[in-house]
Amino acid sequence: MIVTVTMNPSIDISYPLETLKIDTVNRTNQVSKTAGGKGLNVTRVIHDLGGDVLATGVLGGFHGAFIAEELKKVGIKQDFTPIKEESRDSIAILHEGNQTEILEAGPTVSAEEQTAFFEKFKELLQKATIVTISGSLAKGFPQNFYQKLVHAAAEQEVKVLADTSGESLRQILKGEQKPYLIKPNLEELEDLLGQKFSLEKLEEIQAALAQPLFEGIEWIVVSLGKAGAIAKHQDAFYRVTIPSIQVVNPVGSGDSTIAGFAYGLSQRMNTEELLKICMAAGMANAQEKKTGHVDPINVQQHFENIEVKKIEQ
Amino acid sequence: MIVTVTMNPSIDISYPLETLKIDTVNRTNQVSKTAGGKGLNVTRVIHDLGGDVLATGVLGGFHGAFIAEELKKVGIKQDFTPIKEESRDSIAILHEGNQTEILEAGPTVSAEEQTAFFEKFKELLQKATIVTISGSLAKGFPQNFYQKLVHAAAEQEVKVLADTSGESLRQILKGEQKPYLIKPNLEELEDLLGQKFSLEKLEEIQAALAQPLFEGIEWIVVSLGKAGAIAKHQDAFYRVTIPSIQVVNPVGSGDSTIAGFAYGLSQRMNTEELLKICMAAGMANAQEKKTGHVDPINVQQHFENIEVKKIEQ
Repeated sequence: MIVTVTMNPSIDISYPLETLKIDTVNRTNQVSKTAGGKGLNVTRVIHDLGGDVLATGVLGGFHGAFIAEELKKVGIKQDFTPIKEESRDSIAILHEGNQTEILEAGPTVSAEEQTAFFEKFKELLQKATIVTISGSLAKGFPQNFYQKLVHAAAEQEVKVLADTSGESLRQILKGEQKPYLIKPNLEELEDLLGQKFSLEKLEEIQAALAQPLFEGIEWIVVSLGKAGAIAKHQDAFYRVTIPSIQVVNPVGSGDSTIAGFAYGLSQRMNTEELLKICMAAGMANAQEKKTGHVDPINVQQHFENIEVKKIEQ
Repeated sequence: MIVTVTMNPSIDISYPLETLKIDTVNRTNQVSKTAGGKGLNVTRVIHDLGGDVLATGVLGGFHGAFIAEELKKVGIKQDFTPIKEESRDSIAILHEGNQTEILEAGPTVSAEEQTAFFEKFKELLQKATIVTISGSLAKGFPQNFYQKLVHAAAEQEVKVLADTSGESLRQILKGEQKPYLIKPNLEELEDLLGQKFSLEKLEEIQAALAQPLFEGIEWIVVSLGKAGAIAKHQDAFYRVTIPSIQVVNPVGSGDSTIAGFAYGLSQRMNTEELLKICMAAGMANAQEKKTGHVDPINVQQHFENIEVKKIEQ
């Protein structure tokens, strides 16, 4: 089973407006409200692909109950720790070709609630072979909380796919136990290393991934958007190129990449197949209106058109 | 007991942002979520004034449950009809001195749910002496639904204070049974009559209120903002003037006027006192940050500084 971790889920509210009128009332009868947060996008896409997935994390109040119900409606297994404060809303206003977002910081999770979640997480590890960790921590958590999850998973030989950035990523890399995969995009990698990269000089990215900071991490996938990806598996490097596609909504494509990889791992795919399935899932998501959703037939088609080349060193 | 009717309640979400950045992410850890909708503002202000009030209407889903809980927290009695669809969110972004709002149309109420509400309403009337009706109907309701409520109330000799506009107001005025009070502002009155008014020619407003359309309505209060109000009670006209005040947040002042009037009626206040208490409640609301909330001490102070003059004809 794949266990997905979402520590700050949200109700993702989307308002498509013709125009956003400032300092007045914008009335609309078009609104969508879905279970959101990066980890829940991962969950849905694994579910779309036919994977065996269970969502965990923390959910609070009536907003949390709405999120739980949304997952239940589509038949996604879940086991969240209840928290006292309300889960958050995340607003996206789509207007005049713009996407203006308001993201709430969300609830503060108490020390007791954190402990309750951690105990649950350790229990779930007994049934899991793969864990995904996505997005930011809610308020209240110590910055090394994800590192703690990585350690607990390592103790039970469960593979962790970590998609986080900033201080959480730094903390994870500092830990004695390493995640199985990290998936920084170029910007996140630059932020992490304090170094600028260019698509024209992929060998510099390659060199950066070879440094001791990343030792012990089985997989590093650096997504390059339209340019595909550069990946490191153990000591080998791979260049992934993708065909150009018509993009409808790219939001959640990074999450879908993680979902594709987790699904591929659960299906015991080989190196080349894993790189293809993760990129294919990201591409298929970008062709859907709905964030964090793929058509498996479309994934299969992209899978066949993606090229993976081992970079000779 | 005063029964307040809110047929399309909302979670009123307010985001105070320094600036609203377009086409990007605005992060905030400042957000307030309250039980909203004009009828719930009326409810809270009656409650603040110490009145015996019960809120009714329709509430749906997890958003509805959130609203119910917010009312319960402050000890407000309620008896809502549950509906299948989710109650709505109403977003107010406060940025750079602007108030940019996104108002969802909200749920559609089925014919069965409408009947269930109407049956409950008739039961509640047996315990009520005053009913307030505020704001718009949810989707699904026939346009004459408020008229139906007015008729049911009239049958049980319950006084209806109606604060609605557009087609709902037109329908109410067409009915055989009339509400006890209507409270159009100048704009609503102009919209209703297809006629322009000016604060310099109050006698034209007075003449307009004397026309047959308004026959049988005991009270008409036309709020004029800073200029106070002009009111008709039975055949007599009154000019209400108010001292100037420091306004903090005028949203909900119209609702507070209705609340003040309902409270005054329940306390058997006389004509002059009723006009003072309703205006005082509106003013006190405008001096609070929170929408639909008054400090009773402030209401009392304004009460003493409001002037009511009968207009000699």
